[in-house]
Amino acid sequence: MAEIVKGADVAAKLKENITERLAKLRSSGRDAKLTILSVGDDPANASYERGIIKVFTALDIPHEKVVLEAGCSQDEFDSAFTKINEDPTVTGILVFRPLPKPLSVEFAAKTIDPNKDIDCMGYYNQASTAMGSKDCFYPCTAEAVLKFLEYENVDLAFKNVVVIGRSTVVGRPLVSMLISRNATVTCCHTKTADITDRISNADIVVTAAGSRALLKGDMLKNAKKDCFCIDVGINMREDGQGICGDIEFESVEPLVGKITTVPGGVGSVTSTLLAEHVVRGAEMML
Amino acid sequence: MAEIVKGADVAAKLKENITERLAKLRSSGRDAKLTILSVGDDPANASYERGIIKVFTALDIPHEKVVLEAGCSQDEFDSAFTKINEDPTVTGILVFRPLPKPLSVEFAAKTIDPNKDIDCMGYYNQASTAMGSKDCFYPCTAEAVLKFLEYENVDLAFKNVVVIGRSTVVGRPLVSMLISRNATVTCCHTKTADITDRISNADIVVTAAGSRALLKGDMLKNAKKDCFCIDVGINMREDGQGICGDIEFESVEPLVGKITTVPGGVGSVTSTLLAEHVVRGAEMML
Repeated sequence: MAEIVKGADVAAKLKENITERLAKLRSSGRDAKLTILSVGDDPANASYERGIIKVFTALDIPHEKVVLEAGCSQDEFDSAFTKINEDPTVTGILVFRPLPKPLSVEFAAKTIDPNKDIDCMGYYNQASTAMGSKDCFYPCTAEAVLKFLEYENVDLAFKNVVVIGRSTVVGRPLVSMLISRNATVTCCHTKTADITDRISNADIVVTAAGSRALLKGDMLKNAKKDCFCIDVGINMREDGQGICGDIEFESVEPLVGKITTVPGGVGSVTSTLLAEHVVRGAEMML
Repeated sequence: MAEIVKGADVAAKLKENITERLAKLRSSGRDAKLTILSVGDDPANASYERGIIKVFTALDIPHEKVVLEAGCSQDEFDSAFTKINEDPTVTGILVFRPLPKPLSVEFAAKTIDPNKDIDCMGYYNQASTAMGSKDCFYPCTAEAVLKFLEYENVDLAFKNVVVIGRSTVVGRPLVSMLISRNATVTCCHTKTADITDRISNADIVVTAAGSRALLKGDMLKNAKKDCFCIDVGINMREDGQGICGDIEFESVEPLVGKITTVPGGVGSVTSTLLAEHVVRGAEMML
């Protein structure tokens, strides 16, 4: 029986820290504020947005939303972005992406204040993540994985980590972030010959492919017995009733040391990290 | 007996292509030009610079050098950089790094024209490399590894590649570039528990750690028999007579399918790639 590492516990620890820092910030007369910028109202963002609003409300962090009309021009988008970027009361900017075509995020990615770039959309933070920085803003979902490892006091030196998935928001940055923390990392994906073989001697397996039942118990036969499996995937369940991750929980759980669930795992930490970033943004605006 | 893949052959193919493109460029009244910017005259750069001048002279590509005084200010450096960056005749900029302290490369990394950023010093190209772009400028040494693979027509899908080393100029970007080309990549380094184990079933091993005799024959016992070993390392030989790579050639060569040497390998392709980038920069300035 694996220990289930709960997102709520990881998030609770983060929230405690955020509340302390926010109090300190306010005692010096400052504050944090998130601005969400979206073009049109894409229902695909609605559930993510609800999660964010819930966390920010509970933590009492100011937040606002700027919604541009669906057919707005590139100039209109860039101007709206610049206004937010230059607003000294805004300490974190979240742009819902992808933008509707033909809008490009390029100007924003180039000009965003690195200290407000809380979801790593800008070139500076993307480059810094890739180059091994430990204090830039990482993409929240990828960073959530690190928070689970920190919560369990995992020292990554001399550990083998397999990341399944190579997306630009999770897999790729996570590979870099793990290498910076001394993990020996293997990145697997749809063009990997034999994932079971690549998992041999793995201490940690992270699934971030968005593919239901991608990781099954029999694939872990050569992994370490106390292997920690972290599930970043979000998929519709086969029966259409709610969501599930990339891990086939029933077959994997009995074989590993620690595991996260979907729902109740990585996803529940992501919005809290966004809040942590908005507060950090405020701290950096000294 | 392994086949030795020679840097001179890989470079010759590239040079042929560069010459053709340069002729085309000039027939339309345009030209390429490299500007090297350095602060002081660090002898550590001398050998690299000689190699560059030799290649550019042979290919008949205009090149110039701007040398600032060793004690110049940040403003002086940034102004000199901007002048080159805005010069429409310059199609590629190479800044010798690291800059002497306390100078910072930050302004240059942020403002460099992505189309002149031929050695991937700017945030845009670093982020693009990390995010999987296939048409941005990569760091030349990391890209040289790709050129050896292309020269041998290696299809990386379903191949296991082990990169030993995690530097910001070779190991890290190379991991990302290989993932983009469908390789299954493992990155090993000084905090890896058992490199021999991580190399199991490897099709390709790239050494980029800068550590003499890092890879020895007995470490390849579980690698594939036709494994391709590419040596990016540059170290002083133990006897002080010239340079050697990270691979212990005598013990590795009999056990693998293909191998590169140092000298005569990756290093001989790097300067040619710099020339290719300067020409590409000119092509992009349409």
